[in-house]
This record gives sequence, C-alpha cells and structure tokens, in this order.
Amino acid sequence: MDKIPGATNRDSIIILIHCPDKKGLVSAVTRFVAHNNGNILEIDQHVDKLSKTFFMRVEWDLDEFLIPDDDIEKEFTEQIAAPFDMNCQLFFTRDKPRMAIFVSRYGHCLHDMLARYDSGEWYVEIPLIVSNHPDMRQVADRFGIDFHEFRITKENKLEIEAAQKELLASYQIDVMVLARYMQILSDDFVKEYHGRIINIHHSFLPAFPGARPYHSAFQRGVKVIGATSHYVTADLDDGPIIEQDVIHVNHRHSVEDLARKGRDLEKVVLARAIWHHLQRRTLIFENRTIVFQ
Amino acid sequence: MDKIPGATNRDSIIILIHCPDKKGLVSAVTRFVAHNNGNILEIDQHVDKLSKTFFMRVEWDLDEFLIPDDDIEKEFTEQIAAPFDMNCQLFFTRDKPRMAIFVSRYGHCLHDMLARYDSGEWYVEIPLIVSNHPDMRQVADRFGIDFHEFRITKENKLEIEAAQKELLASYQIDVMVLARYMQILSDDFVKEYHGRIINIHHSFLPAFPGARPYHSAFQRGVKVIGATSHYVTADLDDGPIIEQDVIHVNHRHSVEDLARKGRDLEKVVLARAIWHHLQRRTLIFENRTIVFQ
Amino acid sequence: MDKIPGATNRDSIIILIHCPDKKGLVSAVTRFVAHNNGNILEIDQHVDKLSKTFFMRVEWDLDEFLIPDDDIEKEFTEQIAAPFDMNCQLFFTRDKPRMAIFVSRYGHCLHDMLARYDSGEWYVEIPLIVSNHPDMRQVADRFGIDFHEFRITKENKLEIEAAQKELLASYQIDVMVLARYMQILSDDFVKEYHGRIINIHHSFLPAFPGARPYHSAFQRGVKVIGATSHYVTADLDDGPIIEQDVIHVNHRHSVEDLARKGRDLEKVVLARAIWHHLQRRTLIFENRTIVFQ
Amino acid sequence: MDKIPGATNRDSIIILIHCPDKKGLVSAVTRFVAHNNGNILEIDQHVDKLSKTFFMRVEWDLDEFLIPDDDIEKEFTEQIAAPFDMNCQLFFTRDKPRMAIFVSRYGHCLHDMLARYDSGEWYVEIPLIVSNHPDMRQVADRFGIDFHEFRITKENKLEIEAAQKELLASYQIDVMVLARYMQILSDDFVKEYHGRIINIHHSFLPAFPGARPYHSAFQRGVKVIGATSHYVTADLDDGPIIEQDVIHVNHRHSVEDLARKGRDLEKVVLARAIWHHLQRRTLIFENRTIVFQ
Repeated sequence: MDKIPGATNRDSIIILIHCPDKKGLVSAVTRFVAHNNGNILEIDQHVDKLSKTFFMRVEWDLDEFLIPDDDIEKEFTEQIAAPFDMNCQLFFTRDKPRMAIFVSRYGHCLHDMLARYDSGEWYVEIPLIVSNHPDMRQVADRFGIDFHEFRITKENKLEIEAAQKELLASYQIDVMVLARYMQILSDDFVKEYHGRIINIHHSFLPAFPGARPYHSAFQRGVKVIGATSHYVTADLDDGPIIEQDVIHVNHRHSVEDLARKGRDLEKVVLARAIWHHLQRRTLIFENRTIVFQ
Repeated sequence: MDKIPGATNRDSIIILIHCPDKKGLVSAVTRFVAHNNGNILEIDQHVDKLSKTFFMRVEWDLDEFLIPDDDIEKEFTEQIAAPFDMNCQLFFTRDKPRMAIFVSRYGHCLHDMLARYDSGEWYVEIPLIVSNHPDMRQVADRFGIDFHEFRITKENKLEIEAAQKELLASYQIDVMVLARYMQILSDDFVKEYHGRIINIHHSFLPAFPGARPYHSAFQRGVKVIGATSHYVTADLDDGPIIEQDVIHVNHRHSVEDLARKGRDLEKVVLARAIWHHLQRRTLIFENRTIVFQ
Repeated sequence: MDKIPGATNRDSIIILIHCPDKKGLVSAVTRFVAHNNGNILEIDQHVDKLSKTFFMRVEWDLDEFLIPDDDIEKEFTEQIAAPFDMNCQLFFTRDKPRMAIFVSRYGHCLHDMLARYDSGEWYVEIPLIVSNHPDMRQVADRFGIDFHEFRITKENKLEIEAAQKELLASYQIDVMVLARYMQILSDDFVKEYHGRIINIHHSFLPAFPGARPYHSAFQRGVKVIGATSHYVTADLDDGPIIEQDVIHVNHRHSVEDLARKGRDLEKVVLARAIWHHLQRRTLIFENRTIVFQ
Repeated sequence: MDKIPGATNRDSIIILIHCPDKKGLVSAVTRFVAHNNGNILEIDQHVDKLSKTFFMRVEWDLDEFLIPDDDIEKEFTEQIAAPFDMNCQLFFTRDKPRMAIFVSRYGHCLHDMLARYDSGEWYVEIPLIVSNHPDMRQVADRFGIDFHEFRITKENKLEIEAAQKELLASYQIDVMVLARYMQILSDDFVKEYHGRIINIHHSFLPAFPGARPYHSAFQRGVKVIGATSHYVTADLDDGPIIEQDVIHVNHRHSVEDLARKGRDLEKVVLARAIWHHLQRRTLIFENRTIVFQ
C-alpha cells in the first residue's frame, strides 16, 4: 500500500459526525473505540452554541480493532449514531479519492495541482481533466491525464451537463475541483454533487463576487486582494468557505499586477482547501464550514 | 525644536503634487530644488496610466536652501506649479499638526492612540477628544486632554455639528480621527473637512459595510476578518482607503472572539493610516489613495 | 460574579493533562465527566509521536456536576489520573489569576496591557507593577496600580530578587509578565516560577537573541522582523515559545523604523500569549509549548 | 516583439545607479532624460544615511528619445555617471534574460517556475536545467528544456564546475536560479557570477541556516516557519536577502507538515525574488539589497 501523505496512519478510519448537542456524546464515541480495542489517533470536536449542534471528527487505528472493516459502519450506526441521532460519514484512509479538474483557459491552478499530484503530495487519483476550451490539453498530455473538451453554448448547456455527468460516473469521480473554470453549473448539477465541488474565486468573498474581481478591486482602491476557496452551491460565489487568504497591494499595482499577484494566492488557497477536503477535515453546516485542523 | 519621529530632517519641506502627466515634470521639480541649493531627502512619484495623471511627493532639506521659507510657495508656484498646471500642497515638517479624536464607547483605539501620543511616537498635538457618550471622559482625564461630550439626537444633529465645528476651530484642529465613533457625519461637515477626517471600519471593505460587521462576518463564515482605515466622504464606508489588514479566524471563533481579535487589527490599521497622514504621504485621487512609502 | 471574557461558561473546570500515550485515555476522561453528569464544553488532545506523550485539555460545565467542587481533584486523581500516570493541573474558571507586570523604560506593552485590563478584555487582577526605572510610575498611577521600583546593581541583584519574591508573595501573584523588562532573572528565581513568567522578545527567535535585535536585523538586511513571546527559562531567550509573528520591512526602514513597527508586533504577540495562558490553553513540554486553541 | 510582462513599456531603458550621495543627483539624471526628449516611466531612489550612499532606478521611454540606443551608455557615462562617480548598470527592457535552473531532487520550485515560464508570466528564456540527480529529467523533458546531469563527488567537484561554466557560457546564461539545489558552489564559481545566482533557503534566515531547517524549526518549537531567497555569496546562507516570508504553524505540525507547508512558501518567495531580479529592481549593497518596488 502507498504511503498516505498527511495521514496519521494508513490503516485507520475517520468518522465525521454532526448531531444535536447533548451530554455524553464524546464519551459514547470514544468508549466505542476503546471498548473495541481501537487507538484514537486524532479527535476534535466543536459545538455551535447558537444552534446547539455538535460536530466531531475522530480517527482511530484499525490495526488491532476488534470489529471487521465491513461491519464497522453497521455497528457504529446501531450502537452510537442512531441513539444519538447522528449524521455520520465514514472514510477508510486507505481509500484513494478520485478527482476531476475543471479548467478553462488559465493554467496556474491546474499546473500547481498537477505538480503536487506528480510529487505525491496528495493521496488522490486524478484521471480526468474537463474543459470548455482546448488550451489546457497540452498540459494534460504532459502529465498523461485524459482531457475532455466540451464546447458549451447557451443552447447545449443542459445537454453538455448530462454528458459530463456520464463522464464523471464512468471515471468514478468522487470530487470535482473548479480550477478557474469559467462556467456556471446548473442548480441540478450542483445539488447532485453537494459538498463535492470545490471552487476557487479570485477575491476575498463576500467582496467582489462575480466576474472580473481584480478590476473591481482596482477600481475600489483596496489595499489587500484575496482569494477564496469554497464548496459550490446554487448561489454563485456564495457557498461555504473553506479557505481564504489575502496579500497586500498598493497604488502602484495595475489590474495586471493584481492578477499576477493574485494567481499565487489562488493556487495556494485552493491547494489548502483541497488538502483539508482530502484529509476529511471539512464539514458543511448551513452556509459555513467546520474545518478541523 | 522637538525631534520629529519619522521625519528625515526637522528643517525640511514636503510638497505633494498632482497634475496631468507630461515629459519633464520630475526634471523641472528637481531642478528647482537643486538650483536653489536644496538637498532632496526623499522623492517618489507615480503615474496613473488610465487617467494620465502624475503624482509626486518630494522632501528637501531647508538648511542651505536659498529661498526664504516665506517665499517658497510663491516661487514654486510661479516657476513650476503654474506652468505645469500642478495641484500642490506644501508642508514644513516643523509644523506640528493638531488632531481631535472622536470616540463613542469603545476605548481600544483611543487608548492605543494616546499611548503612542504619550510616548512621543507621533509628531502631533492632541488637545481635544469629542464624544457622544460620557464613558471615555475618564481616559481623557488620565492623559490630561480636554473632553467634550455632545448628546446627539435626531433633532439636534445639525445644531450639534455647528457647535462641533466651532469647537474644532477654537482648538485649531487640522485633522480628525474617528476612533470607533458611532455617528454618521453630515455631508456638509464631511465636505468642509475633505481629506482631513480618518475613520476606522471594522471589516475589510467593501465587504461588510455599515453596522455590525463582525456579526455579518460570522454569519457568512469567512476565514479572515479585517479592518479598514479610510478618509471619510459623503458615502458611508466608501471613502478612499488608506490601510487595510486582516487576520485568520476559524469556525471556533464566536462573534465575541471576532470582535476581540478585530480590536487588535483596528488599532494597528488605524495607527498606520494616521502615520501615513502625519508624514504627508497620502494623496487622494478620485476614490483611491496614493500612499507614498 | 463577573462575566469571564473568552470562557465558555463561568462555572466550569479546566483540566490540563499530559502522560504516556496509551489506548483508552480519552474514553476514560470523558467517561468520568459523563458519568458524573458533566457536560463537556471543550475538548482537545494531542499526541507527540516521537516521545509517545499524550496531551489533553478538557473543560466541563459544573452546573449539574455530581461531585462537589472540593472533591473533584481527589476523585479525578484516584479514578483517572493515578491509574494512567497522568500529570494534571486543575483550574476553576471562576478563579481570577493575579498578575504582576515587570517593565523597564519602554511603555508600549505596559500601556497595551493596561488598556485591555481597563476594558475588561482579560479575566485577571493586576495589582502590581515592578520596575528597575522610575519612568513608568506615572502610567501606573494613572491606572491606580501599585508601582514598586528596585534600583538594581550588580552587587544587590540577589538581595533585590529576595525582596521581589517577598513582594510577589504578599500580592499573591500567580503569573508575571516581563513587558520589555531589561533585566536577566537569576536561575533560582526562574525555576521557582517555572511556567509562570511570560516574556516578550523583539525578534523572531531563534534569530537575533540577546540585546539590540532591531540593530542586528537591520545589519543583516532581513525583509521581515518579528516578535516572540515565550515562557522564561534559565537559558536567555531560549524558553518555550507561545506566540510569534512577523511584519514585512524593506530597505527604506531605518533601525528606528524597525523599532517603531516592531512595537506594534510586540504588544499584539505578547497579548495573544497572555490570552492563551489565562485561558489555560498552554502546556510546556520539553522546550516547546502545546497551545490548544 | 513580444509583450513584456510587468514592463511599463517594451521600448524602454532602465538604469540602476549607486554612488556617494550629494546634492543635484536626481536633477542631473532627470535633466539628461528630459533634455533628450525621454519620458520617465518610473523613478525611485534611496539614500543610505549611514554610509551616505545614493541609489536610484530610473526607466524611460525610448520612443522619441534623441540619442540612438548604441550611444546612450557612452553619453550617459560621460555627461552624468563620470562626473558624479556613479556605478551604473543599463538594461534595455527588450533584451530577454537567459536563465538556467539548478535543481536536485525536490521538484516543487522547478515545477512552479516552469508553469510561470509556460504561461508567459516572466519575460525570460529558460534553455537549460542542471542537476546532480536524474530525477527531474522527466520534468525537463515535458517542457522541452535541455537537461544536463552532473554526478558530483568530492573528488570531481572543481572539474565539474569547470564543465558547468563552459555549459553556462555555451547557453549564454545571464542568471542562475538554485531551485533547491543541494550542492555548495565553490567560492570562485560564486564570485564569477556575483549578483547573478539566486537561491531559495527553507527558513527565515538568519535562523536555521544550513541543512535540515525544518527539523531544527520543529525542535525549537517555533510558531512560524519561513523561506528566504537571496543572492549567493561565498558565505553559505549569508548572502543579501531579496525576499522572505513566513507562515504560522503550531504544535500539531510534524516535520513532514512543516516541509509540506514550507514548500508553498519556498516557491512563492523564490518567484517573487526572480520577478524583482528580472524587472531589474534589485541592487546589492554590502550584504543587503535595495529592492525598488
């Protein structure tokens, strides 16, 4: 088995939980692990005071765990999740997620992602790049990754999305990254992949949503510019934020300078968001994220 | 004469210029200085490409300058400013600006400003604190600064502003700082002191203008919060930005935590903006600032 | 009872734990809480992989807890701490720590701390300021805090420290903050207050330890300067780091500029470290800190 | 002619100057430009107060400049540089610098540089990659760049350097970038390319020079890690710093995590330093840099 970057142990399981807060939740979960001879590698929890909601991420070692892998979900659900009305997601860290990259004409995020992929920084499989332009085919070819181009028009949009869904299914894609993909996805598409589409927007949202944020930032005369990575929802640029960062600028910077400096932000912010997602550290709650780190 | 913090020389003059761009501007200004035996201590310029506007800040030593202080403005205007259609501001660095602080009930920016004042960090006189609440009188008393309280209501607003203007005049105030002053100034008031009122807003504008930005930031689930210092114009929270900065936050931070972390940003961002202003490094152009540093 | 800033609940208890790592630790602690009808408000843990050491911070609500306050330490020790060979510290959040500030001639950190104290940002009592110079007496007077000056010479150093210890005892001081205190404490003094003396050093340690770090930073031509807050140990500037931060500088900045910009860093970094300490979020392990946040 | 990214005008000239400070320097230079019908695009200057040294960067438009390109250096030297005892470097912005990349086994900086090169972000030619390992040949091949591997041993070091110099000459290389090149260059080699070798070191120098800085940072328990790009001099990791930046870390980060997070810093810091160098914005003075920006 491959070494998993960032994982505390390659033979472990991660459970993400959210449920109404009440006494004894942590005790119940940790007792389940201890009772079955698991060793907790990481545990983190959070309580949203306003909504009284409990969130938890726990990872334990499977080496000497007494419950067989195939029965863990069932046992955990019956003994713990159901009684406490928990919403749970289970992940075996050995399972390698399959990612598709959507890109248009700007290659900086794509290049950055592929360099990380190439060096083994991420425990992920990237078998597919999708684009509405031919420009990045050459980059895909260099890294030996399948490239599918869709010429999208106003008329064929839904048709194309249907073809894309089929493609994603055939490649068994778990997560999509919009690496400066200049197309708006339909609500249906977004809903089908809820919590599994990560976008990078080139401003510190909620400032400067929509098109040409660097132009708007220049016009407004801001002294910082930013980038925001978020899960895609039906509301454009309004999904739950995973990562944000900014960089200082001044009156000397033209729109072109802002775009150049911004590119370095975009790729790093996007990469951090992807890292959190791949590490199963993110939970979506209402329109915000819990990022356990 | 006192030592002037941040000044390159205490017996110097600073000229801020803006005018239509053309060939020979820098040469004309520097030749005026050199020809009259001045030594340039700092020179900085900027050209706005879109509007073809030229900006310049030049400071020179007066020690051996051949033109008497009282004639410099006239000579410079006749020989340089008029022929090139320049808009100019002249400042002798020995002239100490007089500042009034406007404050409501939050004291962190006020305390921070007074600590800097007390230690001699700023070359400024602060003879007056104005408030719409009595809370900060005690702080003013500690530092021996006059404190004037105005009980403002919807009805007496213009009347109060008239009284404030009189007060400002009687104290010969050059610049006002709104250090978390929770009152909106009238358009007339703002216009009268154009470029001389500095505000601190507790968000990274243009995100979260108006009231309760920390609440809005929490609701939106942002991963950075910010502070913005700007010159006050008739459009609330929309004036030319002088300084901005941000700090990272995460899902664990309550609104109260955001406010607490934000206070440290607010006071530092405001202090930097005041520093630039006192150093005569700021020029307002349309709705942006040039900050020569 | 006062509102406690930053506390999740004013009637709660915090336990800081470290011990050899083994299975079942989290489960044992959380079960103790749940079994006695406590509600966990926050839990955080960390395992040092190299030394196989387990660290934990847990806070629970005492409102309906079944064990009386006076018996919690005994019960927890017998049932949990002893069997697992835990090193524990217990804190009732209602207990207000008593802090002494040591200062020399620079007042920026002192002013900043007193402004926070004055506004109620910290849940702490500051009854005492100690100095080796008279300069800050006026500041202490303004805030109504006792000021003790000790004229320290090479000859009387140990004698003075004995007097200081007596003073600290008489004021029942729990924690000391060296807010730019330009004196080296003896090893004995430091050992007696292990983990209870917080210092601010004006560089990003381990770069530029010792005297005049801004001069050294200028000489080296660095492009960032920093500040470091750490617990004081016998090795000067080498104690466990609690907080660090930096700010960008460039070739235009003189040593005086670095010192001015650095002051803003120092006070914020020191305040963050104090916050963590007061929130009982810090554990010292070897020469590093665990800061649960 | 290609569009030059970051250049104000493609048909312009940049002069970098340093000399003893005296009155009339700026006036003399700008008058030379104005007198010959040049339009100043950017001008920046700096005076080192301690050594009384003057530094200047001036760029002007050649479109209507009266002196033919081939005579500018001679005319400027005779009229301006010689009388003022100036040390000057002239660059026509249309001249595209030729860069060689030296790399060992880590590919993140190399990938990042090639992605920028590929997208046209930099106005540079990169015809050559040199390595002491075969690992990065595949990356070079993907981008169609010549790759030369040298197996370096203690015995053949000088011999290899001789071969490398020949190679650099044959490719007409102007500037070398050590993109995580794990070999120490000889003093002679370094002297020959003074001011033309840029290195990236994975710490905030002067902290953690030499090998394995992330291990040292982990051991020391720092709360920030950094990266430093500098010109290479005979003293290892002690050359003039061009760019530095840091990122926050905490007790949860293993050495592996520090290295992963550090990689993102390294590539961005290196890219910024290269940008400044390519824009002719850097001047080396003693062991520091002036970076006009």
